[in-house]
Amino acid sequence: MTYCVGIAVGEGLLFVSDSRTSAGVDNISSHSKMHRFGVPGERQFIICSAGNLATTQGVISQVERDIRRNTDVHLLNVANVGDAATYLGGLSRAEQKKTEGNGFEASFLIGGEVLDAACRLMLVYPQGNHIVSSDQTPFLQIGELKYGKPILDRVLALNTTLERAALCALVSMDATMRSNLSVGTPIELNLYRRGSLTPGAHVVYTEDSPYLRQLRNSWDEEIMNALTRLPAVNWSGQTQ
Amino acid sequence: MTYCVGIAVGEGLLFVSDSRTSAGVDNISSHSKMHRFGVPGERQFIICSAGNLATTQGVISQVERDIRRNTDVHLLNVANVGDAATYLGGLSRAEQKKTEGNGFEASFLIGGEVLDAACRLMLVYPQGNHIVSSDQTPFLQIGELKYGKPILDRVLALNTTLERAALCALVSMDATMRSNLSVGTPIELNLYRRGSLTPGAHVVYTEDSPYLRQLRNSWDEEIMNALTRLPAVNWSGQTQ
Repeated sequence: MTYCVGIAVGEGLLFVSDSRTSAGVDNISSHSKMHRFGVPGERQFIICSAGNLATTQGVISQVERDIRRNTDVHLLNVANVGDAATYLGGLSRAEQKKTEGNGFEASFLIGGEVLDAACRLMLVYPQGNHIVSSDQTPFLQIGELKYGKPILDRVLALNTTLERAALCALVSMDATMRSNLSVGTPIELNLYRRGSLTPGAHVVYTEDSPYLRQLRNSWDEEIMNALTRLPAVNWSGQTQ
Repeated sequence: MTYCVGIAVGEGLLFVSDSRTSAGVDNISSHSKMHRFGVPGERQFIICSAGNLATTQGVISQVERDIRRNTDVHLLNVANVGDAATYLGGLSRAEQKKTEGNGFEASFLIGGEVLDAACRLMLVYPQGNHIVSSDQTPFLQIGELKYGKPILDRVLALNTTLERAALCALVSMDATMRSNLSVGTPIELNLYRRGSLTPGAHVVYTEDSPYLRQLRNSWDEEIMNALTRLPAVNWSGQTQ
């Protein structure tokens, strides 16, 4: 499996992705699931992928090939993020159709900004269509999403800072990694500041990352302490 | 869907269950999923159920009927929790076989204690077999389990107090309710103290419960504050 989160707040975009791929517990390896494309000053895109690895790799290769060959439509000439999502959905459908049978689905998060167009975050479904994040729910997830959803639901709002969104996304990823073996390091984090049109800050945390360990230990301690401050259960009434 | 957690720590057992049943979003109602049986001073059992409502209600009715008719094997004459789980699994299989087709599966948590036998927590699968909780993972879940698992993974250990286990279970339930509409109030909580052999403390929280609202608000605030105390993301290095 995979776990990727995209967050779209007022300040910009934040992405986190894991790198574990598996075809069963005895066939595990690591592949980056975060890809960046852009022209400084003109456009920036971040893409995260989940699903069948052959499909997602085929799609990303085609994205790169189309840019090299300067086809009619590619990421470096589309007018906005919506058009980019439509293009990506088309590539994904075409790639899936190359193979007979089921189980070759893939999902993508795509976020970014094009000069004179809006900064947006979208989710491309295996069927090729897409949705956009909303002001009320300023995040989208792909892959193994349930473990890490509650922290996002509690914390994120449109006015959340990118720094806080990054911490929230890392805690969400840590919760998922701990509860599900099919999600694992390296973890990639990318922060794109709205209007910058330059590649955002990008960092990779490997399994032995001191920062990731420190974050997990700190969060465990915070959760333990928070529980001690909750209002005690009142057992006296049958209904209260 | 449903969400139930059973926790087995040194001090005893803790159960939490929701009450929402649904056959689609336009057919929602409330049924208790927690059932208690016992003879004070001799034995106590707590059962939580998930899955097809006709199956779970059929099984619980049969449990009550067997007690009334004093059949060869029933909850008030089995020697221990393991035998009770085997009996429950048999009833579940029999109930499922009454109906043709698929989708009539049910899962159960059963915990309790019989005089001169161990205090135990078990999960009965739809197939009728069962597993027991371990000292390393002192909890079992049925139903919509992923949203609420991370907090249990972070907090619970064999030496966790029942009071803390109760708070942890309520936070786990709150996370699940918030992220998944198919899990909802009333919430039931039951605390059984090992060796007591008397019915444990039991409380029901309805949708407008001030305590439940207070708990959610406190937890949200704690999480927000905890995030501000985490070590800041270090963006300087490519790999750290």
